[in-house]
Amino acid sequence: MAVIEGGGVTAAKGFLAAGVHAGVKSSNPEKRDVALIYSELPCSAAAVFTTNAVKAAPVLLTMKHLADGRAQAVIANSGNANACAPGGEENAEKMAQYAAQALGISPEDVVVASTGVIGQRLNVAVIEKVVPVLAANLSPERGEEAALAIMTTDTVKKEFSVSFSVGGKTAHIGGICKGSGMIHPNMGTMLCFITTDAAISPAMLDKALKSVNKLTFSRVSVDGDTSTNDTCAVLANGMCGNAEICSENEDYYAFYAALKELCTAFARAIAADGEGASHLITCRVSGAGSDESAEILSKSVISSSLVKAAMFGADANWGRVLCAMGYSGAEFEPGCVAVSFRSENGDIKVCENGEGLDFDEDLAKKVLSAKEIIIDISAGTGAGSAECWGCDLTYDYVRINGDYRT
Amino acid sequence: MAVIEGGGVTAAKGFLAAGVHAGVKSSNPEKRDVALIYSELPCSAAAVFTTNAVKAAPVLLTMKHLADGRAQAVIANSGNANACAPGGEENAEKMAQYAAQALGISPEDVVVASTGVIGQRLNVAVIEKVVPVLAANLSPERGEEAALAIMTTDTVKKEFSVSFSVGGKTAHIGGICKGSGMIHPNMGTMLCFITTDAAISPAMLDKALKSVNKLTFSRVSVDGDTSTNDTCAVLANGMCGNAEICSENEDYYAFYAALKELCTAFARAIAADGEGASHLITCRVSGAGSDESAEILSKSVISSSLVKAAMFGADANWGRVLCAMGYSGAEFEPGCVAVSFRSENGDIKVCENGEGLDFDEDLAKKVLSAKEIIIDISAGTGAGSAECWGCDLTYDYVRINGDYRT
Repeated sequence: MAVIEGGGVTAAKGFLAAGVHAGVKSSNPEKRDVALIYSELPCSAAAVFTTNAVKAAPVLLTMKHLADGRAQAVIANSGNANACAPGGEENAEKMAQYAAQALGISPEDVVVASTGVIGQRLNVAVIEKVVPVLAANLSPERGEEAALAIMTTDTVKKEFSVSFSVGGKTAHIGGICKGSGMIHPNMGTMLCFITTDAAISPAMLDKALKSVNKLTFSRVSVDGDTSTNDTCAVLANGMCGNAEICSENEDYYAFYAALKELCTAFARAIAADGEGASHLITCRVSGAGSDESAEILSKSVISSSLVKAAMFGADANWGRVLCAMGYSGAEFEPGCVAVSFRSENGDIKVCENGEGLDFDEDLAKKVLSAKEIIIDISAGTGAGSAECWGCDLTYDYVRINGDYRT
Repeated sequence: MAVIEGGGVTAAKGFLAAGVHAGVKSSNPEKRDVALIYSELPCSAAAVFTTNAVKAAPVLLTMKHLADGRAQAVIANSGNANACAPGGEENAEKMAQYAAQALGISPEDVVVASTGVIGQRLNVAVIEKVVPVLAANLSPERGEEAALAIMTTDTVKKEFSVSFSVGGKTAHIGGICKGSGMIHPNMGTMLCFITTDAAISPAMLDKALKSVNKLTFSRVSVDGDTSTNDTCAVLANGMCGNAEICSENEDYYAFYAALKELCTAFARAIAADGEGASHLITCRVSGAGSDESAEILSKSVISSSLVKAAMFGADANWGRVLCAMGYSGAEFEPGCVAVSFRSENGDIKVCENGEGLDFDEDLAKKVLSAKEIIIDISAGTGAGSAECWGCDLTYDYVRINGDYRT
């Protein structure tokens, strides 16, 4: 089982998609901004959402729609978050209605998601116009269009898929997702739509997604800001023909493992393409008192503005790593900490027993010049470990976010 | 009673200071890097310190020295934090010994503080050389030298003082402090040395400082990173002649009020001079369920990278303000929130009842172009309020911190 780039939301049997330019925000006809995803059969469905107390209208609506664990389509737009926006609830409902009407299904079986500027009225009329076009264009070949249509400041589309064996059948899971700012997920995250032809009950799908989410999307931070619109939804149509997974059996573990691989690929892709990012930063903590402590320590390091700025400058300023561990709230013994920087360019240990080592600054610079940098921390002699993902803080982050609305 | 710029650490009677270049880090002879502050009489003393679990050696030493509530001098260096550094404990002790010897006092009566790069061995030999010079130069005219000597990336020195009446006498409180990165205090903060000629018992001084700290330094964030070296120490020598304040009487309240004004000035100055900052951001929250909730909401807003980047760009992207409130963890009713931006250039309301208002973008740009920007939030109908201070996120923050060590 290996996750591959591509395949995306139409990798699984029976899923169709399309994406077009409607003009939600940008008048650039090159920028697709509305996506439609459809399953030929009704699906088990589950989702995780932002824990932000300020939730966008489509998040609240989708929570209602998925209460029965069933869905058959996703409609999503970029360019406007439909959060804190006049007419938000009504406009989210309209999006579901347009999709339902064009597809001949119930509005309650539609997942609705939006991403973009907060606080401005959504121009739902332009979406109404394109939904029939989208429905007519739906195809297993157009998953990429959907991936493009949900992008905001993302610089690359994010499509992954994986195949695995379940109950003697070959099943597929694929998906699309988008970052890339306001990323500090606390349960669900950003927009991510995953489709699978495995048969799995709504309850088991929900269980798998929630567990995987904790180990993947909830371990990413781009800028510490938890969005109002985070949504990760999975639709499972059963078309691969396996016996439905209804308990924590071997088939469940196969499904879980594949979903985890897929979401890990997405989580890393989101961090790597964080707003303005030039480096993917992976922080591995081992030797902590518990996995939970390790995660808190790791997340504090990848969230530190000072660590992030040092990584941008390829500056091995590991004191900031210890500082971030120190204020994380997790217990550890500062005098037992060791820190190494690793990358495809080499390894360098910079701190042992909580104190600085003499190290070769030129080698450190070389190690830190790779695209992916691993900050490897031994926090003590415990058995807890965790890996979180972030990115560096760059001039481009400031540029992008100094003038995001225009 | 009005806080004035200047006066600093020698505004109060009986306090002397000096600052020189020793070469702790920089070889630039213009950069003073060691400060000495001395009181002619022994003092009541109190301090608050960083809550970071990784504490610098001078922090741990000063905690011991102030256990008896007494001190008579402060020695501080910039350029090296003496945190996570080989020989840290020994070198902090040496700094106290050098000062004690030159001043003819006990090392236990010396407050020691360091600020600068973490993890590198402190060159204490250069400090040893200059301490006798500092001791010989001590003067009420040289408080400014001490203010200059503790600066790191600060662009302006920070000296304030205030006079007030207590028990029929005129007392003075003054101080110096430094920011300007790794600022997200959680109890004590950064380096701040305050001196007063009021007579107050160690216990009451401790009480006053802890209360004031919560309302001032603990309401500042520059970059969300709580330092390993935060120290705010107050020395009171009683030379103004008032009856010693030993209980929560009227004199205590006069002292408390003056200390609060002074520390508010310092807190605002630190935020305004945050690394790379071009704007001081004041976030006022009213109508919250409690002062504590208001503080959590306000601090979340001034700490948000996205809010900070928007303020840098003079972009009235208030959706990010609501987003930051939403993930703060404080309870509030999103549908009741109103947000205005205010400055010396005007006022503009951008959100009411949790939804966006149409507003004049040109006026918003003008309001947000002032040096100090006030984000004024009504969170509901409660009685809780709080004011916190931060700064914008700029290219210069990234530049400064991409290559801090060299």
